[in-house]
Amino acid sequence: MSDVRARAQRARFASGLLGRAPLERRDEALRRAAASLREARVELLAANAEDLARAEGLLASGELDASAFQRLKLDAAKVEEMARGLEAVATLPDPLGRVDLRRLLDDGLILERFTVPLGVLAVIFESRPDAAVQIGALAIKSGNAALLKGGAEAIGSVDLLIKLLRGALAASGLPADALQLLHGRAEVDLILALDQDVDLVIPRGSSALVRSIKARTRIPVLGHAEGICHLYLDAAADPAMAVALVRDGKLQYPSACNAVETVLLHRDRAPDLLPRLVADLLPRGVELRGCPRCLALVPTLVPATEADWDTEYGAPILALKVVDDLDEALLHIRSHGSGHTEGIVTEDAEAAARFLSEVDAAGVYHNASTRFADGFRYGFGAEVGISTSRIHARGPVGLEGLVTVKYQMHGHGQCVADYSGPEARPFLHEDL
Amino acid sequence: MSDVRARAQRARFASGLLGRAPLERRDEALRRAAASLREARVELLAANAEDLARAEGLLASGELDASAFQRLKLDAAKVEEMARGLEAVATLPDPLGRVDLRRLLDDGLILERFTVPLGVLAVIFESRPDAAVQIGALAIKSGNAALLKGGAEAIGSVDLLIKLLRGALAASGLPADALQLLHGRAEVDLILALDQDVDLVIPRGSSALVRSIKARTRIPVLGHAEGICHLYLDAAADPAMAVALVRDGKLQYPSACNAVETVLLHRDRAPDLLPRLVADLLPRGVELRGCPRCLALVPTLVPATEADWDTEYGAPILALKVVDDLDEALLHIRSHGSGHTEGIVTEDAEAAARFLSEVDAAGVYHNASTRFADGFRYGFGAEVGISTSRIHARGPVGLEGLVTVKYQMHGHGQCVADYSGPEARPFLHEDL
Repeated sequence: MSDVRARAQRARFASGLLGRAPLERRDEALRRAAASLREARVELLAANAEDLARAEGLLASGELDASAFQRLKLDAAKVEEMARGLEAVATLPDPLGRVDLRRLLDDGLILERFTVPLGVLAVIFESRPDAAVQIGALAIKSGNAALLKGGAEAIGSVDLLIKLLRGALAASGLPADALQLLHGRAEVDLILALDQDVDLVIPRGSSALVRSIKARTRIPVLGHAEGICHLYLDAAADPAMAVALVRDGKLQYPSACNAVETVLLHRDRAPDLLPRLVADLLPRGVELRGCPRCLALVPTLVPATEADWDTEYGAPILALKVVDDLDEALLHIRSHGSGHTEGIVTEDAEAAARFLSEVDAAGVYHNASTRFADGFRYGFGAEVGISTSRIHARGPVGLEGLVTVKYQMHGHGQCVADYSGPEARPFLHEDL
Repeated sequence: MSDVRARAQRARFASGLLGRAPLERRDEALRRAAASLREARVELLAANAEDLARAEGLLASGELDASAFQRLKLDAAKVEEMARGLEAVATLPDPLGRVDLRRLLDDGLILERFTVPLGVLAVIFESRPDAAVQIGALAIKSGNAALLKGGAEAIGSVDLLIKLLRGALAASGLPADALQLLHGRAEVDLILALDQDVDLVIPRGSSALVRSIKARTRIPVLGHAEGICHLYLDAAADPAMAVALVRDGKLQYPSACNAVETVLLHRDRAPDLLPRLVADLLPRGVELRGCPRCLALVPTLVPATEADWDTEYGAPILALKVVDDLDEALLHIRSHGSGHTEGIVTEDAEAAARFLSEVDAAGVYHNASTRFADGFRYGFGAEVGISTSRIHARGPVGLEGLVTVKYQMHGHGQCVADYSGPEARPFLHEDL
């Protein structure tokens, strides 16, 4: 048995212990971890400085981009933020042991269903060292074990952070093996092959990372490869609201997965709305790419190609398309959307209702920015990611996406033979 | 684009229409289908007779076993049973549109989460023609489209059944394309490759079928490859109850996935319990295979080999093993169990509590037959299968395993920029 497989099995055993530990113990570990991070601040910044020094070389050679370099960087404020994040997870309600079914099948035969940890997670993330802390916190709270692999450029920072979290687990009488670091691509490949030993893979990073992971494993993957979100400006759109929601959707954080990539404009409103959008966005440095009907209205736009409708820019670039009506907008979204978050701007309640009902996406929004699609903003306290899959979890995923259920039956000797055949005893099926 | 892919996309479109249709319409289709089956009884039995005639050849050549031949057979009673099954699904509550979260994020910004269909299911089953009707009924009720592939030996019966169900959909103003038949292994292989177009694969049949499907697709698979269920007879087991639960678990339906394959006996009770089990089971034709400590007590048993602990017999064969204590029983189940259903027989509440807490399986039972692990017995009305996976659904899966959620946001122009940065407006996060 490979070393990695043995570690995954130790992780499963650790998950069992962690999942049965009382909430107080798991929360204690989270608070201890917060304290450890604060105490180790100097050491953490030193480890991070070494990572940064190495990353400067990668930045110079173009192997790392400037935004990844920024995300890698820790400072005193970031350390405090991570510590507070751990403490915030400690205040969340327990995701485990929630009974959602308690049914009397017959006198003295009781069926219960309640939440238990998923088991073993494999988490693969890119340069952000704080992702390790966030995922580690959610795993501890939900009784899951996590095998973590950070970006190679963050190795010093992540190693130390996980060491601190493991120390907090051990100091709270919980198994340190619930959190384990993986090193190198070879170990990741071994883990991705262990579909018997790993329950869920969570990639956190670029769509290229997510796609590459999905292609390499049969283990279920939680996340989204793409966020191609649309905002449809309907015939009955309020013009000021339309401009504000496009600006927020595109510019508030252009590299977010819930940023708007394409704006669809109803043909009757395009002559009015398009110049307003151009006037608002061009001075803010947004590159605007338009369909031929857009260009007919504003000839200075960059001509959009077919590829633009399927592109997640992750940058201040926006595609614009004039559509005949709501039907064409729905068709465009069906053909080019990624099932993440889609919005309509309209004062027409009927058009809004049709859009919300007919668009098939994790989130459908009426008169609100698509940027709200986020676990913190939804009030989940923390998020492991946003799922565009329909299976297991969809949309922003908090602690409740990290649990499964277990059925318990309490009887006193009941046999199925008595409930079968022509003289079958009937079931009561009475919810308690 | 392949024909099969085009059909899968038509199925997705049909699922959209079906999922938005009111409950009354979906239930009407189910009742119409029941009436159609009754009306077409003669035709159905004729189609089935042709299947049976062909299958007799396969039976003679050993390509089909006797129990598969039995499952293939329809008669008037079976047709009536299928019709009643359709009507029963029509009486179940609507699995769609259930709001499980309604939260005020801020004044005038409301988030809702409710259930919607999964989308497109691929269902691959073996000889039972009634499986097509059962799955078809659950798909119609839950607004899902299903691409169905039955066993080649049942082709005439299944073709006609699906034709009748499609007719009932159309007659109720619903899209017939929500149910489509696949033919031949080549079409199944094409479907299993469509991870963008198919949301969930449901294999219904032998563990060999399930394993083969799992190995051939990246689409999530709902089901279980194996059901290796244990019954542990604890130091404090009631002897009469122990014998009755072993008999029910092994013999009530030996080929069921929730049948008991291995009985673990506490060493202090083996001298008393083992002879009782032998006396009860041997005359009923059960082959008993024992560990060396069992053989020391009852030398006439068949010696068990290591392979016995990992075998799902699906037959009246039972493996028996003496263990030192509860710890050894837990270790054996951890090493050899399939995560399906595991039971303990004991009058010791503490031992029961430890067993129920520490065994990691979809179902953990105290003093009840493992044969109760079934959607109908749990009161789910119908079942698509039993999942031993931890992702999406675990245990017997009814209609609620065929839905996912969708988030709807209702605002009046709110932007994320106002809820960000140093002057951020706070969220209310007030559940309504």
